[in-house]
Amino acid sequence: MQTTGLQTSMKKLINTPESVVHDALEGVAAAHADLVRVHFDPDYIVRIDAPVKGKVGLVSGGGSGHEPMHGGFVGRGMLDAACPGAVFTSPVPNQMLEATQAVDGGAGVLHIVKNYTGDIMNFEMAAELAAADGVEVASVVINDDVAVQDSLYTAGRRGVGTTVLAEKICGGAADAGLPLAEVKRVCEKVNSLGRSMGMALTSCTVPAKGSPTFDLGPDEIEVGIGIHGEPGRQRLPLKPAREIVEMLATPVLDDLPFQRGDQVLAFVNGMGGTPLIELYIVYKELAAILAGRGVSIARRLVGSYITSLEMAGTSITLLKLDDELTRLWDMPVHTPALRWGV
Amino acid sequence: MQTTGLQTSMKKLINTPESVVHDALEGVAAAHADLVRVHFDPDYIVRIDAPVKGKVGLVSGGGSGHEPMHGGFVGRGMLDAACPGAVFTSPVPNQMLEATQAVDGGAGVLHIVKNYTGDIMNFEMAAELAAADGVEVASVVINDDVAVQDSLYTAGRRGVGTTVLAEKICGGAADAGLPLAEVKRVCEKVNSLGRSMGMALTSCTVPAKGSPTFDLGPDEIEVGIGIHGEPGRQRLPLKPAREIVEMLATPVLDDLPFQRGDQVLAFVNGMGGTPLIELYIVYKELAAILAGRGVSIARRLVGSYITSLEMAGTSITLLKLDDELTRLWDMPVHTPALRWGV
Repeated sequence: MQTTGLQTSMKKLINTPESVVHDALEGVAAAHADLVRVHFDPDYIVRIDAPVKGKVGLVSGGGSGHEPMHGGFVGRGMLDAACPGAVFTSPVPNQMLEATQAVDGGAGVLHIVKNYTGDIMNFEMAAELAAADGVEVASVVINDDVAVQDSLYTAGRRGVGTTVLAEKICGGAADAGLPLAEVKRVCEKVNSLGRSMGMALTSCTVPAKGSPTFDLGPDEIEVGIGIHGEPGRQRLPLKPAREIVEMLATPVLDDLPFQRGDQVLAFVNGMGGTPLIELYIVYKELAAILAGRGVSIARRLVGSYITSLEMAGTSITLLKLDDELTRLWDMPVHTPALRWGV
Repeated sequence: MQTTGLQTSMKKLINTPESVVHDALEGVAAAHADLVRVHFDPDYIVRIDAPVKGKVGLVSGGGSGHEPMHGGFVGRGMLDAACPGAVFTSPVPNQMLEATQAVDGGAGVLHIVKNYTGDIMNFEMAAELAAADGVEVASVVINDDVAVQDSLYTAGRRGVGTTVLAEKICGGAADAGLPLAEVKRVCEKVNSLGRSMGMALTSCTVPAKGSPTFDLGPDEIEVGIGIHGEPGRQRLPLKPAREIVEMLATPVLDDLPFQRGDQVLAFVNGMGGTPLIELYIVYKELAAILAGRGVSIARRLVGSYITSLEMAGTSITLLKLDDELTRLWDMPVHTPALRWGV
């Protein structure tokens, strides 16, 4: 059964499944013309003042459907450009190549890449093409998801919430005037000290497919879910938030491991369909667990920053902070989705 | 069928239906101790530095379930205190009274009240008690929803999205040192120049009830919905975003009416379960409609700021700007949910 081109079981505020990404990019262009410019065909979002002379350029990207990541993080103190692919699909090398050229201010460009096979391959190709064009490019792969080793679309660990923190902190590093090798070092440090895990209460529906990516019973949750609905560790009956947060926080804490006396940035993320009132309940439970382990929350972020369309659920990211990372996190940022100090 | 105390058909990240508001407030207290203090029993969220001597105090409040409104708007440049009731239920006078006393810095206190019968009654009683205690109190009622005249819980028009804008702009007015009568005048101006209308793709479930507030078919939307799921103007089959936005924007534009040459603040709000990618599609369509009418978007806000638990849907608010309102909107704000200039 269809109505005006939109399928039953896919209740979304969209025009057509084919135009979702383009329409949303036009919305971003209209809303944030003071901060970013949207280039179409190939699609990328770039700082209005790019390239910034003498500053290392930062480029990220990935499939759409995770908004505000990455396009919402373009602006002063964070990314110089973001390349949006189709929903849950890697952008193509030409997008990354043109974005890299557009943000090269003579100090080179860092690619921040989430660990998905398609993204890795396409960013590598773009880096080679940019290098052939005379742009110095370095890359860091984010692989912070402790849920599973290898996954649909991924060899090794998936890249998730730590990506948001890496983009902010590296943006600070680039603004502070650090050279490419140093910004890359900072990015690798963030990845090495960040760990995440997520869960879903509901699936999401990719517009082009029109039906849910996976099926969860009315009483079931999936713990360790990927941001494209990739399978996690286990399916369980719905549990109280306290138990769910424990199931996410324990493997995150034990993996690094985070230890008594550590200072962390605690990031409670919504998957897209989960309201803020629930994220604060998650934060409460996380804070209690960390207090019990003697881990101090020095910085925090609560909100839906790396989403999976309208999926209901949450993910937890912990980043072990040192003075350098704290200072770079605190630097001014002015993007559509994150802003402070300016 | 029950599992660990949580009912089927209510998939939420909560501990128990009874503890939702308390747990979320503890999360807010833990996350934002640098900005706010949460007082329990009676419950209110107050600026960490309240009362601010010589500044008009701003207090709002209402049922919980609309986060970040109002508690997420407490801080420099916006509210001095917010009183959260049970989910979709007015706070009681004692909350408002203690919050009012806590923020009175000697220049009086403005109550910003959404037009719902319970809220009006309880804020009036609190104002009388505070006045008897020697605090000068003024009140402004926000009633910007053009969808329906009279509603469940409301005589006259409901108060919705303009409330967020009024709280920010009045926060600027109070920070600028305006006296109580002037802050009240500004608030009344915002209410007189702001208009809103919303729609739902899905219902939401009040935790204490455990089943959806209303039923929508798999293919149905409700246009003109209230933020507690109150009936709107009509139920229609799902339509493309362009047509939905037209159905919201036209009555909003025609009501004031907004005219060719007007400058507006355009606020595209998510209802809680709608991801940002869809809100940008809504923004694109709204911008096109306004351009067609010769109305200029001078300021904008895109995100989920006045929600209805996990309801999927959107609302549109337009505020006609003049120099005073624009200047006050631009003033620095530092709250959990809105921050700029600091």
